[in-house]
Amino acid sequence: MTLWGSRMSAPLDPRVREFTASLEADKRLAPYDLKGSLAHARMLKRQRILDAATADRIVAGLEEIAREIEQASFPWPDDAEDVHSAVEARLREKIGDAAGALHTARSRNDQVALALRLFTLDAIDGVDDALDDLQTALLDVAREHVDAVLPGYTHLQRAQPISLAHHLLAHVEAFDRDRARLGEARARVGVSPLGAGALAGTSHPIDPRSVADDLGLLGTFRNSVDAVSERDFVAEFVFCCALAAVHASRLAEEIVLWTSSEFAFAQLDDRLTTGSSIMPQKKNADAAELIRARSARGIGAVTAILALLKGLPLAYDRDLQEDRAALYEAFDVARDGAHMLATLMRGLHFDHAAMRRACERGYLTATELADHLVRAGVPFRDAHAVVGRIVRELSERDRSLESLTLEELRRYHPRFGASALEEVTVEHALASRSSPGGTAPVRVREALAAADARRRARAGER
Amino acid sequence: MTLWGSRMSAPLDPRVREFTASLEADKRLAPYDLKGSLAHARMLKRQRILDAATADRIVAGLEEIAREIEQASFPWPDDAEDVHSAVEARLREKIGDAAGALHTARSRNDQVALALRLFTLDAIDGVDDALDDLQTALLDVAREHVDAVLPGYTHLQRAQPISLAHHLLAHVEAFDRDRARLGEARARVGVSPLGAGALAGTSHPIDPRSVADDLGLLGTFRNSVDAVSERDFVAEFVFCCALAAVHASRLAEEIVLWTSSEFAFAQLDDRLTTGSSIMPQKKNADAAELIRARSARGIGAVTAILALLKGLPLAYDRDLQEDRAALYEAFDVARDGAHMLATLMRGLHFDHAAMRRACERGYLTATELADHLVRAGVPFRDAHAVVGRIVRELSERDRSLESLTLEELRRYHPRFGASALEEVTVEHALASRSSPGGTAPVRVREALAAADARRRARAGER
Amino acid sequence: MTLWGSRMSAPLDPRVREFTASLEADKRLAPYDLKGSLAHARMLKRQRILDAATADRIVAGLEEIAREIEQASFPWPDDAEDVHSAVEARLREKIGDAAGALHTARSRNDQVALALRLFTLDAIDGVDDALDDLQTALLDVAREHVDAVLPGYTHLQRAQPISLAHHLLAHVEAFDRDRARLGEARARVGVSPLGAGALAGTSHPIDPRSVADDLGLLGTFRNSVDAVSERDFVAEFVFCCALAAVHASRLAEEIVLWTSSEFAFAQLDDRLTTGSSIMPQKKNADAAELIRARSARGIGAVTAILALLKGLPLAYDRDLQEDRAALYEAFDVARDGAHMLATLMRGLHFDHAAMRRACERGYLTATELADHLVRAGVPFRDAHAVVGRIVRELSERDRSLESLTLEELRRYHPRFGASALEEVTVEHALASRSSPGGTAPVRVREALAAADARRRARAGER
Amino acid sequence: MTLWGSRMSAPLDPRVREFTASLEADKRLAPYDLKGSLAHARMLKRQRILDAATADRIVAGLEEIAREIEQASFPWPDDAEDVHSAVEARLREKIGDAAGALHTARSRNDQVALALRLFTLDAIDGVDDALDDLQTALLDVAREHVDAVLPGYTHLQRAQPISLAHHLLAHVEAFDRDRARLGEARARVGVSPLGAGALAGTSHPIDPRSVADDLGLLGTFRNSVDAVSERDFVAEFVFCCALAAVHASRLAEEIVLWTSSEFAFAQLDDRLTTGSSIMPQKKNADAAELIRARSARGIGAVTAILALLKGLPLAYDRDLQEDRAALYEAFDVARDGAHMLATLMRGLHFDHAAMRRACERGYLTATELADHLVRAGVPFRDAHAVVGRIVRELSERDRSLESLTLEELRRYHPRFGASALEEVTVEHALASRSSPGGTAPVRVREALAAADARRRARAGER
Repeated sequence: MTLWGSRMSAPLDPRVREFTASLEADKRLAPYDLKGSLAHARMLKRQRILDAATADRIVAGLEEIAREIEQASFPWPDDAEDVHSAVEARLREKIGDAAGALHTARSRNDQVALALRLFTLDAIDGVDDALDDLQTALLDVAREHVDAVLPGYTHLQRAQPISLAHHLLAHVEAFDRDRARLGEARARVGVSPLGAGALAGTSHPIDPRSVADDLGLLGTFRNSVDAVSERDFVAEFVFCCALAAVHASRLAEEIVLWTSSEFAFAQLDDRLTTGSSIMPQKKNADAAELIRARSARGIGAVTAILALLKGLPLAYDRDLQEDRAALYEAFDVARDGAHMLATLMRGLHFDHAAMRRACERGYLTATELADHLVRAGVPFRDAHAVVGRIVRELSERDRSLESLTLEELRRYHPRFGASALEEVTVEHALASRSSPGGTAPVRVREALAAADARRRARAGER
Repeated sequence: MTLWGSRMSAPLDPRVREFTASLEADKRLAPYDLKGSLAHARMLKRQRILDAATADRIVAGLEEIAREIEQASFPWPDDAEDVHSAVEARLREKIGDAAGALHTARSRNDQVALALRLFTLDAIDGVDDALDDLQTALLDVAREHVDAVLPGYTHLQRAQPISLAHHLLAHVEAFDRDRARLGEARARVGVSPLGAGALAGTSHPIDPRSVADDLGLLGTFRNSVDAVSERDFVAEFVFCCALAAVHASRLAEEIVLWTSSEFAFAQLDDRLTTGSSIMPQKKNADAAELIRARSARGIGAVTAILALLKGLPLAYDRDLQEDRAALYEAFDVARDGAHMLATLMRGLHFDHAAMRRACERGYLTATELADHLVRAGVPFRDAHAVVGRIVRELSERDRSLESLTLEELRRYHPRFGASALEEVTVEHALASRSSPGGTAPVRVREALAAADARRRARAGER
Repeated sequence: MTLWGSRMSAPLDPRVREFTASLEADKRLAPYDLKGSLAHARMLKRQRILDAATADRIVAGLEEIAREIEQASFPWPDDAEDVHSAVEARLREKIGDAAGALHTARSRNDQVALALRLFTLDAIDGVDDALDDLQTALLDVAREHVDAVLPGYTHLQRAQPISLAHHLLAHVEAFDRDRARLGEARARVGVSPLGAGALAGTSHPIDPRSVADDLGLLGTFRNSVDAVSERDFVAEFVFCCALAAVHASRLAEEIVLWTSSEFAFAQLDDRLTTGSSIMPQKKNADAAELIRARSARGIGAVTAILALLKGLPLAYDRDLQEDRAALYEAFDVARDGAHMLATLMRGLHFDHAAMRRACERGYLTATELADHLVRAGVPFRDAHAVVGRIVRELSERDRSLESLTLEELRRYHPRFGASALEEVTVEHALASRSSPGGTAPVRVREALAAADARRRARAGER
Repeated sequence: MTLWGSRMSAPLDPRVREFTASLEADKRLAPYDLKGSLAHARMLKRQRILDAATADRIVAGLEEIAREIEQASFPWPDDAEDVHSAVEARLREKIGDAAGALHTARSRNDQVALALRLFTLDAIDGVDDALDDLQTALLDVAREHVDAVLPGYTHLQRAQPISLAHHLLAHVEAFDRDRARLGEARARVGVSPLGAGALAGTSHPIDPRSVADDLGLLGTFRNSVDAVSERDFVAEFVFCCALAAVHASRLAEEIVLWTSSEFAFAQLDDRLTTGSSIMPQKKNADAAELIRARSARGIGAVTAILALLKGLPLAYDRDLQEDRAALYEAFDVARDGAHMLATLMRGLHFDHAAMRRACERGYLTATELADHLVRAGVPFRDAHAVVGRIVRELSERDRSLESLTLEELRRYHPRFGASALEEVTVEHALASRSSPGGTAPVRVREALAAADARRRARAGER
């Protein structure tokens, strides 16, 4: 029988029970519900709201249940409304009517909000760990490829030669910001709502601060209505996950491109690819495709949680139960995708020669020629026009920039000096971009060290 | 061992296997996979692509497996890549190497697309049945309340008196369009892709048309690349579900409002409401709130499927596997929500007196006074201004329109006639709006009959 | 002064006026508002609800205004609430107080719904025309490339050789379904809501059917509440546009890939590409990238319109005004993107030699070898395994399938026959896939003719 | 002629020009483009990359243009590609070919990214100011209503009496977190990308740090590829805006409810409401409805920006141009909505008597009776059951809790004491919830002061 059964003249319709039940989805919340209940029971004892004996029995019962959950021996009932009811029913089996005293000075509303916040804190750590794994993999790979050159692309057209390490470090930066966002979200998530009651607070002499301390939370709620009606902490976490998943999708897209026959910049370990049931020659980067695809689910989760909250009057509405669908989905997508991507990066074998060849073709150092003229006093716009003409005419005759003689260059513009011939080499182009944050290997080595230090610092912060 | 194992120098990394596996999510596809495989095997026999003995063994094996699935006795393996591999492995257990012949003239790509289409067809029927259930409930309830009057709202302000049946029929119309959309989608979903192979067709003398006939499908694919690369049929179905769920959310919102103490237009059966763990007086329409909330998941699913497809080059990409997350989610939300809403409607008890009181207060028949003046030759805009002044002054003195005397009316405008006193009554206002599609009970009775006939026709169409 | 000014004790706050105004966004609606008002005025005359003289003056005034709008000489006021108020104020300037009579038997709610429906009908035609343009371009290009072969891709890995025309026809099919959806939406959009009044119908003897006929609409509303409260026709159109835009994004992605240096399958006309301000060698397919990008705006528009409608109680809420943001955005994205894509297709120059080279490399005809064995009685799975081993060993020695001798083949499996040597050629592989819907040129020629006939039929339907 | 004209053999097709142009949308960026260019020119001078005379002419020219923009006298060309080209062309008109030198050590990619970041920083301030305005309004209104009681709702059912000020402070808390998020985003937005060049850095001896200082930015980019390819700072800002808009929608929903005839808790100033063209008695909270509605556009913008970025390979793709559609939309929605909501709050007149009446009806103090029994030693669950029975039986006889005698109470449970009679009064219930964060007026007064101090501190931080 439900807690409110006495109020109703008829038992709950089984169709409603099934429709409103959240047990299956919420089993993941069970350990967090127990942590919260334990902290609540200890506070009730400290504040003498419950007598010590009752409180002790409750705590002992809850600890037993927590072990059952941990050891997967908890006997989940078929008909429980939700995970909180299931735990409560189990507690009643263990300690009898004393179980009811756990409801003192607490409502389902603040109880659920607490469990959700504790879960989300762990989820933040889970995603952060996965991003750390991914950054570590990227840094490890980058370290091997500082002097390896590949075309940097704009509009998927070869643009300028860059260091592969430099390219990978761009992704490290993006994931670093994802981690920063998650870290900042932690302060908003880690606020205890316990003591808000149904929505108005309680008349019992509770001590929310000590509950927060007990749970390792930084703060306590400031407004009881806000504490039970808001899920912006979920929306924020879901967004952080979706954005991290979108970042992952961009790197995944590159893996798909790089391992195509057309790019052929890299091969994945056989153990990381799948084949085809009909085409014996195929080696597919399925995992990368799924990382890309699942970012769409992350985006869908952000949409869902925001559309869910839109226009809801305060305080608690049952709609909030659905926040978990978005929460779990975004969490799994971000965490699992990041770990998978780390694994893929570690099994990606780059072909330096192929990447270099791609730089040589395609007039990638045309900018160097333009810059040469600028240094010789030619306005940039004019220099750009001259080099544009050179490229157009060479490409019509299928010749490379490197094949130009000084004499030919000077036919295009008299200010070309002999050094231009060296400046159009890929290595020179790479080394010359030594401005701060640039791709010159000397800069990239500094950046690698700094990025690694930052990564370690983030890990240490927690 | 996977089918393509011989191509690879190393077995698949378990992390990749787990990340790319879809078995759990796809168990729902199993019956459809089997239907498709059976039709394929029969065609291979008819076309003599397989010898009759082999084909018969395959068919017998698949039929056994279909029974195992149906009776939930199928031994799901832990390590299968997906539902298709699991079925194939089971077939091999049953009939040995002959199982391999089922791959003749078929690829995983067209196989999966077929199973997905068969599933979606059943899903269309499932949602359509649920909407039929909901429309039936709305029509049954409406029939009881043709003469019951409640305020029609604009901007959530009481606007004009309408028949409750008329209001409920507005929802019936919306769900009718949802059903029309689903019906039209059926023609695009019910196209057999079998024979498209991996993406290019096959050199075997297959007969796609007979497979389609065998499966009761209307058409066959026209282009093999399109057949394996497109999931717009999924996107269309997901959208139809999301829009139906949004329609459901609007009615659910009204149930929440109507059963509030403030509106108090209706009460839900006790067996359809839940209570509070802390507030003994509460009777909450949780199921209605969840219907409203889950429409947000439907919206998220549309977002996800479209974002998934965006920018994918043809033909098949593994990304497409993720279409099922959106498909299942939107399906469950639309179908379960519609059935639940039907149950709620059947358990909703309207308070005619309360609804009528709400019409009397609030100057709901002010428009009648304006129309009275218009019929007397006063320009509408001027008539509107006169009545606006009447309402403002009455509301300052807390008086109703019905309390006005003819003398008073004529002080506002000399063209007011005696009939104005009757025209401001709620019943008169209701009956007078007898234009086609209007709320007059005579119109509503016609509309009810027509809507019921349409509902029956839809059910008959399938 | 607003129409309802007399009711209020104070004029509207300018901040509210500005916040609620929709004039700028709605100027596009003006011609449709006028068409609707003209039809309404004519009906009022026919039904003798207005005297002929008044109705004639109104019609003459509206026709003048329609000309002003068409000739862009309409004097838009700065302070109008919306386009409907602006038109009404102008009418009053022209014909004096008689303008007020246009409000007879009509409310702003049904007036706006009608204008929106008329706009959407034209928008459907606009998108359909653009998709016709795009299909025509694709068919014209396809016709030139029936025998041109390129790799068909799965997982962006080369899979099997296909005809370029076949590949382009896959896109034609997708856009055909988009057009089918738009065509079906037309029936739901083209329903006149005029006569629904504010929400309840009217007491005037109106004739909604004749208004619909006058406007060339197929149907009239069946329920007045539904007529003013629903915007599912907008949501459906927005979705159709978004899905068409997603389809366009997939072709756009392929243009980006094909024109990359890595694929080099095609070049865009110089006049269709843009360059770089800093890299003189660049030739970017910006327009294709923007087509891809704008599909994201289409997806955002679907999200917005569904989230807008979610949970709104009936009947009219001011929220509905915001439907237009999504409507205009999705319309522009779909129509402009399709026309642009048609232009790009017409300026795309394919390099047959490059595409063929890509087929030769990469073991694209491995499936043929497997099929050869199957025809020789080897179970498919075993055949697959044999060929997988061949491919692995050849690729380790950088040899092609075509370089194999019969003797070598037989070392892998004794059932290889002499014909296998021919069957691994690209042309043979292409021609052999002559199953219905397959890529064999003979099939593609039939498909081209059929697709063109379908395209013409669609154009004729309207 | 465009900058890259010399590379191409034909001028840009006007359809492509129009399709790719962003001038109209980007005029808002002009002041920020100029700020960035000025800082760049000054740096080129300081670093002696340009000679002083040239740099000074450029600076003078840009300053003139900035004034033209500010005074709306800038002659916008019809055919400019974008705002950056328009400014550059104007500079050339003013100072001739020296204008070209501004391109030294800068690409369009880092130039655009800088302008976008500067715009976003101002947009953060704009939204933060609007939220400050809204919080100030809420605090001002709350201060007047500390002792005013209204029903706190769960499931839109009356739950427990709360202070109106307490309710409003819940919204203040939500907006406080929105402001915190925006503040944290500032650090990620305020990073100068200038010096990243097209994607690889530059060979000129630039000083990015001094440019950042000149512009008042905290940091400079760490990786040139990341600097031009990432728009996560846009996505983050768009999300912050959308979440703030969703928060606003919840308060807007409450205004709609409160000002309905059914709730009648408050009235809006006449000057803040609009009327109806057909129903003279209407007074609609249109502005609140539009705030609610526009949050859907905010959600659509989040969807769009994330779907836009998904799967894009590095570095710059033209897709990124579309980020601005989402940026502008979310910015306008969040800022304008917050200001409007502040105006509405200041014009909302609460009816204390009506709110109190709503508390008296509906057994709102039932929890007090249960708590009474708990304090008397009855287990909570049992106490809950007893009070549930009381409420059910009273409601069947239409009696209130306050009407109970002690004798009657004791018939339900012998442990009821005399104090129960006082404890069921609304005032007592309110005052008793004095736990931290609870609704007791003594707590609310403290919370008001603290919230105001926090609001002031946020304003001071900037």
